[in-house]
Amino acid sequence: MFGEDSPAITVLCGDQPPDGMERIERSATVRYTDDDGLADALTGADVLFVYDFLSTAVPGAWHAADRLSWVHIASAGVDPVIFPGMRDSDVVLTNSRGVFDAPISEYVLGAVLAFAKDFARSLRLQDEARWLHRETERVEGRHAMVMGTGPIGRAIARMLRAAGMRVTGIGRTARTDDPDFGVVHPSTALLSRLPGADYVVAVAPLTEQTKGVFDSRAFAAMKTGARFINVGRGELVVTEDLIAALRANEIAGAALDVFDTEPLPADSPLWRMENVLVSPHMSGDAVGWRSVLVERFAENFDLWRAGRPLQNVVDKNLGYVPSTAA
Amino acid sequence: MFGEDSPAITVLCGDQPPDGMERIERSATVRYTDDDGLADALTGADVLFVYDFLSTAVPGAWHAADRLSWVHIASAGVDPVIFPGMRDSDVVLTNSRGVFDAPISEYVLGAVLAFAKDFARSLRLQDEARWLHRETERVEGRHAMVMGTGPIGRAIARMLRAAGMRVTGIGRTARTDDPDFGVVHPSTALLSRLPGADYVVAVAPLTEQTKGVFDSRAFAAMKTGARFINVGRGELVVTEDLIAALRANEIAGAALDVFDTEPLPADSPLWRMENVLVSPHMSGDAVGWRSVLVERFAENFDLWRAGRPLQNVVDKNLGYVPSTAA
Repeated sequence: MFGEDSPAITVLCGDQPPDGMERIERSATVRYTDDDGLADALTGADVLFVYDFLSTAVPGAWHAADRLSWVHIASAGVDPVIFPGMRDSDVVLTNSRGVFDAPISEYVLGAVLAFAKDFARSLRLQDEARWLHRETERVEGRHAMVMGTGPIGRAIARMLRAAGMRVTGIGRTARTDDPDFGVVHPSTALLSRLPGADYVVAVAPLTEQTKGVFDSRAFAAMKTGARFINVGRGELVVTEDLIAALRANEIAGAALDVFDTEPLPADSPLWRMENVLVSPHMSGDAVGWRSVLVERFAENFDLWRAGRPLQNVVDKNLGYVPSTAA
Repeated sequence: MFGEDSPAITVLCGDQPPDGMERIERSATVRYTDDDGLADALTGADVLFVYDFLSTAVPGAWHAADRLSWVHIASAGVDPVIFPGMRDSDVVLTNSRGVFDAPISEYVLGAVLAFAKDFARSLRLQDEARWLHRETERVEGRHAMVMGTGPIGRAIARMLRAAGMRVTGIGRTARTDDPDFGVVHPSTALLSRLPGADYVVAVAPLTEQTKGVFDSRAFAAMKTGARFINVGRGELVVTEDLIAALRANEIAGAALDVFDTEPLPADSPLWRMENVLVSPHMSGDAVGWRSVLVERFAENFDLWRAGRPLQNVVDKNLGYVPSTAA
C-alpha cells in the first residue's frame, strides 16, 4: 500500500531498480516492480515510470490503474505504452526525447563509414591473416535518405551532412527549406524516392502508419548498391522481406540495431549474413545513459509536483512528441 | 632504346602498366618496366613515373639515370625515392599530393567511430549469434591528436572536428591560430602532449626526424583508453613497442593501415589482436584512384613539356611538399 501523505510512484524496472532514485524517494513513496507485479503495483499509484522500456506489460495491467495521472517512459519510442486504454484516458504520457539523439547520430555515421570502408571484410580477412587490397568507397556526396524527421532523425541528418553527405528526409509533412534536411519528401513518396538513395536510414516512430513500410516493394525500389540502416524500431521492417532482399542482392547491406523480436533469436539468418551488421539495440546507449534517463524523470517529477507543464508530452494519437513542443 | 624526336618516359609499374596512358604515349616514347628492368629503362629517360609507389628499386637503379630531369611518384609519401643520389641531383621530384586527403579523412573518422561504437566486438558476437548489450562511447568532445599537419592531416582534422571532436596537431612549427587544427604543438612536445589524447593519429611524412617516434615511451605516455591510428607510414612506429603496449593494455586499441613490412607478414601478432584493426594500405585508395593518379601525372607532364613550373614539387631535404607550395 502507498502512504497517504506523499505521491505514489510505481517504477516498472524488472528485477533491477535504477540507481539514482534517492532524491525521488525522499519526496514520494516509490514501489519497484517487474512485469508480473505491475497490476498490483499500479493500484493506488499516481505516477508510472516505465524504466524497463522494452516491457510490453503496461496494456495488460492497465485495468488496475485507479488514480494514475502521468506515465513517463525511459525511451524515445513510446509504442509499448500506446494502446486504446492509454489513448482514451486522461493520463499524460511523456518520453525521454533528446537523450539518444547524438549517440545514435554517431552510430549511424559509423555504420555508413563501416560500409564505405569495408571494415567488416577487413576484420574477417584479418582473422585469416590475409592481406587483400581493395578500393574503398567515398562518403562525400553520397545520398542518405532518412525516414523520420524527429530529433533523432535531425541529429542524424546534421551528422551525415557534416561528413559531406547529401541528406534528404522522409516525413509526415513535405518541405523544401528544412534547416536540417533541406528537402523533406512526404511519407507517401517513399517508394518513388528510394531509388535515389545510397543509404536509407529508418528512425521513424512506430505507428500504425509506419509499421512494415520497409517491405519487399521498398527494398525492390532501392539501388542494388544501397545500404539499409535501422535504428528506429524492428517493426518498421517486414523482416522476411529484408532477409529475402539481402539474399537476392537487391540491396548491398544492412546495419540493424533493432529487430521485431529482441533479443534477436539465435536462429535468425540475419546473424549469419556477411553483408549485415547486427547490434543489440545499443545505438543510443552511451556510457552514463541510465543515470541521464533517471535524471530526466526526476526533472519532470519536480515539474509534476509543482503542478507545472511537463517536458516532452507525447501526442497519444500521433504516437510521438510533436515538434512544436520541442 | 628511346627515339630522338620525343621525350622519353620510363614508367615503373611492375607487370601491370597503368590504364589511361594513351594520351601521353601520343607525345612521348613510353617504356614500362618492373624493378628488375629499371636500370636499363632509366638509361636515356627524361622522366621517371614511379607508378608502383611501393617499389624500393629506384635507389639501386639510379646510377643508370643519364639524362633524367623529373621524377613523379603516384603517392603522397616520397620516402621510397628520397636518398642521397636523388637529394644531390638536379632532378625535380613531384608527388600526388591531394589525391588521398579526403578518402583518408573518411577512413580515420570511420576507425574512430568503429572504436567508439565497438563494431569489431559486435561483429565477433554476431559470428556467435550472441546478443550482448553494451554501452557505447561518445565521439563528441573526445580529443584527437594528429601528428602531421600536411594536407592529409588537415583533411583529417576538418573531418574529426565536423563530427564534434576536439582536435589538436603536432607539427614542425607550433602555432595557436591554425585554420584546421586551432593549436599545433611542436614535434618536440609530442611526449608531453600525448597524455591528453583519446585518439592519436599518425600521418606525418616518413623522414629521419619522424622515423620511430611512436616507440615504447610514446605508448607509455598515452592514456590507457587511447586508440592509435596509423595512416602514415609503418616506419613511424617501432612495431614491437606497439605490440608490447597493446599486449600490456597500455593503450586500448590500434587501427593500422600501414606497416613497416607490407604485406604484413602472416606471422605478425597484429593480425590476431582483438583490439587491432588491420587494413592493407588502402585507406586512401577510393574507387577510381588509379586513373586519378595517372591524370595527375599527365597534368604535370603537360606543364613539363611546356617548360612551366610543375605542381607539387617536393623539397628533397624536408621530404615533402612545403605547405607554402600548396
